[in-house]
Amino acid sequence: ASLASPNNAKTRLSPDSVLNLAQGDPTAFEPYWRNLGDKCTMVISGSDLMSYLSDMGNICWFLEPELAEAIRHLHIEVGNAISKDRHIVIGTGSTQLYQAALYALSSPDSSEPISVVSAAPYYSQYPPQTDYLRSGLYKWAGDAFTFDNDGPFIEIVNSPNNPDGTIREAVVVNKGKGWLIHDLAYYWPQYTPITHVADHDIMLFTLSKCTGHAGSRIGWALVKDAEVARKITNFIEFNSIGVSKESQLRAAKIIGVICDGCQDFESSKSDTNFFEYAQRLMAERWKKLREAVRSSEVFSLAEYPLDFCNFIGEFTKSNPAFAWLQCKEDVDCEKLLRELKVMVRGGKQFEADEMYARVSMLSRDESFNLLLEKLSGIKGGGTINGKRM
Amino acid sequence: ASLASPNNAKTRLSPDSVLNLAQGDPTAFEPYWRNLGDKCTMVISGSDLMSYLSDMGNICWFLEPELAEAIRHLHIEVGNAISKDRHIVIGTGSTQLYQAALYALSSPDSSEPISVVSAAPYYSQYPPQTDYLRSGLYKWAGDAFTFDNDGPFIEIVNSPNNPDGTIREAVVVNKGKGWLIHDLAYYWPQYTPITHVADHDIMLFTLSKCTGHAGSRIGWALVKDAEVARKITNFIEFNSIGVSKESQLRAAKIIGVICDGCQDFESSKSDTNFFEYAQRLMAERWKKLREAVRSSEVFSLAEYPLDFCNFIGEFTKSNPAFAWLQCKEDVDCEKLLRELKVMVRGGKQFEADEMYARVSMLSRDESFNLLLEKLSGIKGGGTINGKRM
Repeated sequence: ASLASPNNAKTRLSPDSVLNLAQGDPTAFEPYWRNLGDKCTMVISGSDLMSYLSDMGNICWFLEPELAEAIRHLHIEVGNAISKDRHIVIGTGSTQLYQAALYALSSPDSSEPISVVSAAPYYSQYPPQTDYLRSGLYKWAGDAFTFDNDGPFIEIVNSPNNPDGTIREAVVVNKGKGWLIHDLAYYWPQYTPITHVADHDIMLFTLSKCTGHAGSRIGWALVKDAEVARKITNFIEFNSIGVSKESQLRAAKIIGVICDGCQDFESSKSDTNFFEYAQRLMAERWKKLREAVRSSEVFSLAEYPLDFCNFIGEFTKSNPAFAWLQCKEDVDCEKLLRELKVMVRGGKQFEADEMYARVSMLSRDESFNLLLEKLSGIKGGGTINGKRM
Repeated sequence: ASLASPNNAKTRLSPDSVLNLAQGDPTAFEPYWRNLGDKCTMVISGSDLMSYLSDMGNICWFLEPELAEAIRHLHIEVGNAISKDRHIVIGTGSTQLYQAALYALSSPDSSEPISVVSAAPYYSQYPPQTDYLRSGLYKWAGDAFTFDNDGPFIEIVNSPNNPDGTIREAVVVNKGKGWLIHDLAYYWPQYTPITHVADHDIMLFTLSKCTGHAGSRIGWALVKDAEVARKITNFIEFNSIGVSKESQLRAAKIIGVICDGCQDFESSKSDTNFFEYAQRLMAERWKKLREAVRSSEVFSLAEYPLDFCNFIGEFTKSNPAFAWLQCKEDVDCEKLLRELKVMVRGGKQFEADEMYARVSMLSRDESFNLLLEKLSGIKGGGTINGKRM
């Protein structure tokens, strides 16, 4: 019954179908979870989880202890971020936590909103998520590279970066007081080699990009300072009085299964490790995409450096969740793809040139294969199936 | 496993225990749901509900069609609000929708934030939920009765009203342009007679107060105008990219079971109707509370008028989710209750006198009974167990 919604219906794609690859809907990993059968099945009875409250002894009083435990365990298994002695605050996706972190780092006593910046190209949703309420506390101030202001600021460091998959560090050189928010949504083995244990003041993660469960709307922040964790919690309290308990328990279950798989992986008993599966899937897709792009003679893609992944135990390359497709100069990449009936986000939305476009690499197989077909069909000089663009 | 969290642990209360009745945590209805056994049990497998998307043909694209259907059906069964030809927008509790509605009704082109008012005593969280981000779009302007401004405004009509349980209508008489948001969280048969089918531009409801499932964080708005529904949806998209799908499906299941029970009720086959159960429970609690208050000689409570409830089919009185306790003049009611180790919200938080305090009527039986004991123990002149206050 739960699968009756249209998005789960198996719609047959034809070569003429419109492909929506504008969002990063992470349905690519569905087959893994389907193959696990009942291992991840969750049962909730009618009287479970009725209270607003989860753990009154914790700063984040609406966080289910099982999920806190699972998140700590996951970071230890993957080795991507320090979780020991860090406060965990849960959010309705990392989107809500991004706003909560801005709130926590800004001051109600300040006469002007604090500037929020990120190095271009940056995630297209940072500016509207910062400015839609015209807050007097914080204000989007654009590209961190060109930020030139002596005042206080918040820099968002998104690494690996959405849209272009690059590894990032903070870039603002400022005489004022700066705060950092590290958005590490894509710092998982399937997208990039895990080269170090990240240790920053505020680190944001989301289940959507880690396991593919975007519908659950679960994000978490690892926070060094108790006072900042308290203010992030306050925001979530004002904003939505907590976070779905059903989603929290399901996330705990799913992460628990992943951690069990990681331990089997270490002892070489099994090939069911989620991240190994997902890393292979992404590497395979990127290989195919690069072939299609080469045969297109129209698009190009940056290369990513080889690096040692502490989790996989091998040298690997980044296989980002988005392809940052580049066209020749003066070609509007989004428009060109629209002619192919592929919906994407154009470069300008990321404060980049229109010769770029961001294409999701996380669609279902059928959609991804159709993307490959469509890209391969376009030949040099901008012709589609022989027709001049 | 899902019941391991502390809030579900059966803690034994002693006469000396601290009672937290400051929030309206609706755990009173747990036994009903427990008694239903497997009827409301939901099973979710690991690959379910992974996408961000639910229904791309709907304005609220993240709303599961099953839940939309269940909500429409519920309002038809209860007869408390018109749902036919109304847009439904889902939120992470009605708290998120309250903010989304403010966003939808305010204008980004306006030079000044629009004034937001509600008739005192009003819900203590309206002011902080309006002002915590210091939005340039809207601003809390206090008591609607004393609002004196020619400009545009938004009036929140909370009926039955939190904290005092009264039935409300809009009160601002203004020459400017006014918008109304009807917060109907408590317009259900267990709290008040259902006297009419409400039909307003924006009506907010929440699962928390309807069925008691606060942990699910599910609220919904019934919206007349498509453009307003679109803007409310935009807010939720910016704020959290949708709402937990697990919670949505669970809410659909729970509401479905309630609707089935209502139909049995109509045909007199059964006594399992949720609202009948909950109405009896609340009426019983209010009777006991009034007895305890009378024997205390310190507190008093307003009487509510008798009215015909179209749902129950009888004359009933309001049995609000909160008691609005009144002390004699110059007595700080919250402080007095704190001496009894009962945590409540004092009148000042609702823009009312400190002789009032709001006490939750929705705690578990054990807590409610302890409240009665504590209230009965306090005698005239403000003595607790013979000790002068």
